[in-house]
Amino acid sequence: MIYWMRAGLLLAAIFGFCPVTDAQTGPRSIPGRPTRDVAARRGFAVALHGGAGSSVRGMSQDARHEYEQALADALKIGVDALSEGQSGVETVERVIRFLEDNPLFNAGRGAVLNRDGRVQLDASIMDGRKRACGAVAAVRRVRNPVSLARLVMTKSKHVMLVADGAEAFAAEMKLGLADEQYFTTTRRQRQWTAARTAAGGAAAEGDTVGCVALDRFGDLAAGTSTGGRVYKRPFRVGDSPVIGAGTFADNDTCAVSCSGNGEQFLRHVVAYDVHARMTYQRATLTEAVRAVIHERLQPGDGGMIAVGRDGTIAMEFNTAGMFRGAADSTGRFEVAVGPKQ
Amino acid sequence: MIYWMRAGLLLAAIFGFCPVTDAQTGPRSIPGRPTRDVAARRGFAVALHGGAGSSVRGMSQDARHEYEQALADALKIGVDALSEGQSGVETVERVIRFLEDNPLFNAGRGAVLNRDGRVQLDASIMDGRKRACGAVAAVRRVRNPVSLARLVMTKSKHVMLVADGAEAFAAEMKLGLADEQYFTTTRRQRQWTAARTAAGGAAAEGDTVGCVALDRFGDLAAGTSTGGRVYKRPFRVGDSPVIGAGTFADNDTCAVSCSGNGEQFLRHVVAYDVHARMTYQRATLTEAVRAVIHERLQPGDGGMIAVGRDGTIAMEFNTAGMFRGAADSTGRFEVAVGPKQ
Repeated sequence: MIYWMRAGLLLAAIFGFCPVTDAQTGPRSIPGRPTRDVAARRGFAVALHGGAGSSVRGMSQDARHEYEQALADALKIGVDALSEGQSGVETVERVIRFLEDNPLFNAGRGAVLNRDGRVQLDASIMDGRKRACGAVAAVRRVRNPVSLARLVMTKSKHVMLVADGAEAFAAEMKLGLADEQYFTTTRRQRQWTAARTAAGGAAAEGDTVGCVALDRFGDLAAGTSTGGRVYKRPFRVGDSPVIGAGTFADNDTCAVSCSGNGEQFLRHVVAYDVHARMTYQRATLTEAVRAVIHERLQPGDGGMIAVGRDGTIAMEFNTAGMFRGAADSTGRFEVAVGPKQ
Repeated sequence: MIYWMRAGLLLAAIFGFCPVTDAQTGPRSIPGRPTRDVAARRGFAVALHGGAGSSVRGMSQDARHEYEQALADALKIGVDALSEGQSGVETVERVIRFLEDNPLFNAGRGAVLNRDGRVQLDASIMDGRKRACGAVAAVRRVRNPVSLARLVMTKSKHVMLVADGAEAFAAEMKLGLADEQYFTTTRRQRQWTAARTAAGGAAAEGDTVGCVALDRFGDLAAGTSTGGRVYKRPFRVGDSPVIGAGTFADNDTCAVSCSGNGEQFLRHVVAYDVHARMTYQRATLTEAVRAVIHERLQPGDGGMIAVGRDGTIAMEFNTAGMFRGAADSTGRFEVAVGPKQ
């Protein structure tokens, strides 16, 4: 039983969909905005996920609607950003910030609690133009880890900062901090209590969030943010903040964000594997994503979203469901949580 | 000016070199050791590095000999382990432990100091049989980070633990700890003072160590250990502890360990890229390694060592030099520090 939402026809009417190589438009010169408007009539595409897993099983109709509405709201933020000519990186950050702020998802506010009953957040972001990237892991007080990851990318010489060092950098950047109470919800406290009772048995990776975007300039970007596993060992790092595992983007091929059993995604370098299959094997985006999810990974491991340089979107998972959404400049606008039909 | 050491002819005489598919030998049954001796007469190969960079420039003859002797001693540990039938993983750990214990190299004892004047150590290890892997980052008191990485791989459900969590796991595993004085050498203190004076300008990645091995059972393994960059931002993580970036191993293709500008190796997912080119493009090990080092990366970025499933060894770098060594069961036994001839 799948529930699709369709909207955005107005957007399609306004912008239409032009192929990525837009010969008709030609260069325009606008004082003060010299270069990037040249391609400003290209099509765009955006996809997001709110985690792959089994939590969709047994979910009430009300809860499902609540998730779908949140996914649609996040997707609209992405469509609006891309429509107005924002970059893929800016779009990815805006969408993920919304999902981090929403307590439904396991990222930012509403993140799961580790074995010590505390949040520890991981995030990464990547710009497909020159493979610039940034990542943070095991941060505890940063309200929007994806924004910190972006600052690591743009304002430091580094790719990855962890723990105290990431928090110190957040302070230097004057990024918004919050105390533990901000992040912790009663739902996550209940999950933590249940996991403790089960002695760490409830190890599902909950509702990691991610976004991939192709902007109107033909640039790709990807980002991922998570609280990790419920009742995880403190300072355990999964795939979400690891470039090549949970996140990857390259303008030549695709942008990818993953969700699932982090250890599996780490050892199989999953996000980069999609790029590698497209580059070296000449696989299409859809072929590459399906091969990784259904041949390389094991059933139940997780899923991914990806967008190709031509605007193709792939959303594939080997779990019971994946919270997901996809939209583009042709008017496509869909969110879903259950199995594919 | 290159200096080769040749030895191990005795080993060659004892073991010979049999191709990996050894039809002559056939299964042998030894009570209590049922399976792995089947292949015990296969050839082996091992390579190691003590870092790629510019430090070889202007090095005195004495210093060069000191490094060469240390590399030869480490290589002999690898050859001895593989000769006696140890696994690739065990061999990699033994070799890297020796290099970590040796204050010449930037790993374990003798690691460089970060901006705060402290050591922060990163390491990873990977077993090519089923892609099991383990990694630790930003640990301060663990005498042999590679051994902790191996314990993460074998004794935890995780791939990566960082900072306090990695140290807590080390304590649970009763691994040897040491205080700051153990790690810090006067040479590294002088480097730190110079770097501080240069306001962080001296950002070279110093003398990271790594090892790759093909054992007599046809199994591949790789590992890497480092103190990171001189005067690095505290809790900055480079490629060394990131599976796919600094370390990768898969029995189907190769085992890889990298050294160099960590951020570049992270964004280009370098170690996995070698595997991907071999798998999807049918490149040979040598072709794949050369393409990554000379086409994907920039001059000065660093280097890598790799061993293929057939025993081929590749050692490639785009820096002035790389401390390196290679040996196999045919009697090859070479160490070098300067440019290739």
